[in-house]
Amino acid sequence: MGDKPRIVILGGGFAGLGAAAKLKHADAEITLLDQHDYHTFQPMLYQVATAVVANEAVAHPLRDVSGKQSNLRIHQARVTAIDLANRQVHLAEMEALAYDYLIIGLGATVNFFGVKGAAEHAFPLYTLPDAVRLKKHVLKKWEDADKNRALADDGALNIVVVGGGPTGVESAGALIELYRGNFVKDYPDLPAQAAQVLLVENRLELLSMFKKDIQAYAKKALTQRGVTLKLGEGVVEVEPTRVHLKSGESVKAHTLVWGAGLQAHPVTQTLGIELQKGGRVPVGLDLTVAGHPEVYAVGDIAWITDNNTHEILPQLGGVALQSGEHAGDNIMRQLRGKATEPFDYFDKGIMATIGRGAAVAQLPGGQTMKGKTAQLAWAGVHMALLTGGDSRAKTALGWGWTTATRKRTERISVDTEE
Amino acid sequence: MGDKPRIVILGGGFAGLGAAAKLKHADAEITLLDQHDYHTFQPMLYQVATAVVANEAVAHPLRDVSGKQSNLRIHQARVTAIDLANRQVHLAEMEALAYDYLIIGLGATVNFFGVKGAAEHAFPLYTLPDAVRLKKHVLKKWEDADKNRALADDGALNIVVVGGGPTGVESAGALIELYRGNFVKDYPDLPAQAAQVLLVENRLELLSMFKKDIQAYAKKALTQRGVTLKLGEGVVEVEPTRVHLKSGESVKAHTLVWGAGLQAHPVTQTLGIELQKGGRVPVGLDLTVAGHPEVYAVGDIAWITDNNTHEILPQLGGVALQSGEHAGDNIMRQLRGKATEPFDYFDKGIMATIGRGAAVAQLPGGQTMKGKTAQLAWAGVHMALLTGGDSRAKTALGWGWTTATRKRTERISVDTEE
Repeated sequence: MGDKPRIVILGGGFAGLGAAAKLKHADAEITLLDQHDYHTFQPMLYQVATAVVANEAVAHPLRDVSGKQSNLRIHQARVTAIDLANRQVHLAEMEALAYDYLIIGLGATVNFFGVKGAAEHAFPLYTLPDAVRLKKHVLKKWEDADKNRALADDGALNIVVVGGGPTGVESAGALIELYRGNFVKDYPDLPAQAAQVLLVENRLELLSMFKKDIQAYAKKALTQRGVTLKLGEGVVEVEPTRVHLKSGESVKAHTLVWGAGLQAHPVTQTLGIELQKGGRVPVGLDLTVAGHPEVYAVGDIAWITDNNTHEILPQLGGVALQSGEHAGDNIMRQLRGKATEPFDYFDKGIMATIGRGAAVAQLPGGQTMKGKTAQLAWAGVHMALLTGGDSRAKTALGWGWTTATRKRTERISVDTEE
Repeated sequence: MGDKPRIVILGGGFAGLGAAAKLKHADAEITLLDQHDYHTFQPMLYQVATAVVANEAVAHPLRDVSGKQSNLRIHQARVTAIDLANRQVHLAEMEALAYDYLIIGLGATVNFFGVKGAAEHAFPLYTLPDAVRLKKHVLKKWEDADKNRALADDGALNIVVVGGGPTGVESAGALIELYRGNFVKDYPDLPAQAAQVLLVENRLELLSMFKKDIQAYAKKALTQRGVTLKLGEGVVEVEPTRVHLKSGESVKAHTLVWGAGLQAHPVTQTLGIELQKGGRVPVGLDLTVAGHPEVYAVGDIAWITDNNTHEILPQLGGVALQSGEHAGDNIMRQLRGKATEPFDYFDKGIMATIGRGAAVAQLPGGQTMKGKTAQLAWAGVHMALLTGGDSRAKTALGWGWTTATRKRTERISVDTEE
């Protein structure tokens, strides 16, 4: 070691792991940093939050990756600043790391758009701790109300979900199934059938990136299952037990799930460059930062222009994985003295699950699928994306059980701080 | 309801669930209280702590029980006092509950026997939060040392396990496998081969309730795997980074696992009766408290005399389950105007696992088994004891993966308090 080029990868999400994999044969010292000791399979977080799968089913030890790759070291550490001029990354738990090449794949945080009380009282759903926190909170509301019926009358069991994109739609669908499928039996003394799940969306449609027939299907499927849709509506203030809407209405609800938007990881503020919408880092067609051919930004944190369509790519798992892989490939080219290449995103389609037997999918060609066929497609794609064979098997098991039995054996709260 | 007899069951462990099951057809209002919303499969906690199975694999929602039993209500609440004279149970989160029959199955807490610093710094292993806390702590020690080698030199990676009973032996065996099988690969820059697991026991033998040949096998199997045995030795003081032994020796270790003893749940102090060793509640042959034919104590919290051998029964899962069931049966008899019957414990044998392919079992007839045969027997008995089909399948999966691959994909820390 010593004289080998130093490559630092920030973030162990789809983007960072994709980059590391492509650098497997690099004659370099690679360091991957993440705030957690695990990779999170984000598309399934709503299933953790609604007790379908165990916490660990969507998390995979990052060191399982490093064990297979001899040029890779992994550390659990939080990034506090990136010093582009001096080519250094500053960390909360370690000394600063110098790099010859840097890949920034730190993802995003939730954007509350300044809504009053949201930062304090809303439950985001972007990380595994977010999902666990939401699950514990909802379970606690039911346990508390079961001991004190006045809480149920005060709306303790009601949930407001904000955002009509995939996160909001999937969460609302999974929550209503948990309520009507499980809690009606778990809490026979509570008015479980009357407990509400409300979905609030500014637009008049759900799933705006999908075609009209899918949007209509999503509305119908959620309504049939018992979700109350509030379209053309917004949240203006969140209190612990009340949600105030744009229309002036106040909803009694002790839980608000925020699925309404993201902003880039705040460390982008330390780069000293002009950022794009949502604080995202603008990159050239080869995914490098302007003036810094040694620095890449990939995944949710990046503002990526597609080489073919020249449109800005959305913050999706597929974009993260492919852009991370592309950055790794480009560094391999640089190490060999070759020129970098522009990034072509290969769209594999988009999907969302509304409930049992009710999913939607839209293929790149524009074809749409709804219902059970789409659910199988959804399951197939997500299984393929899961990084570890073990998680894959466990997730399959969780799904199998839930589908077959409607049981949700993960509806427990394990609190290590008690 | 209303005029029906009120039966209150305290604790959702093996004892409480056994009692509830036997009262399924009682024309009564039954309430089961537990501090958690799940039942814990305690014999496998050491597997959670050492990342073999997911947290939730050993926990099962208590409400899955109540859903199947229409005369049963479940509440998550902590018991603060039992008022035998007024037949009331006082609770932290609810109003006091009146009972006509009471079953006390609240189990135990760890007994540190007054060892200085133990309450503050030792890691017990009796509840699921205990196991999760220990796992997080050990993972953090390795992550920290990987960033700062001086910590490894200070003993950050060393673990002292106190107690040569099944808890201590199983924990030490599982920890050394985690160290030598996983961490040597996970942390190539750390001296993982030199990191120590020490097992400290006051007696000169391990597994004192087993026969001599098993005791010898356990010593050999642990030593071969790399555990350092300190027999005839005790802990006199625990500091965050040092463990002081009876012999005067000080061990550099930032983790101490306490598997050395139990005492009854502290609520027994509120009963106003004379308690037995370890604060346990003495009961008659029919498991009722003297002078209170309506009050039963069962499981780890009880001081139970076996009807056949007239010996005091040990604090084991099998005793808890059977004594709980017997209390339920006796209340059924009382409800029908019949006399209660004495409790005969049916000994199914005792078992412990030392490592992969190395378990020990002793059958009631005195036969002993060692190695792979015993491990299969162990697995079979534990699978049979697990209360839910789902947990059973998941546990089997966890075991299968670990046995087949030596992988421990649960070696992650999910912290909701960050």
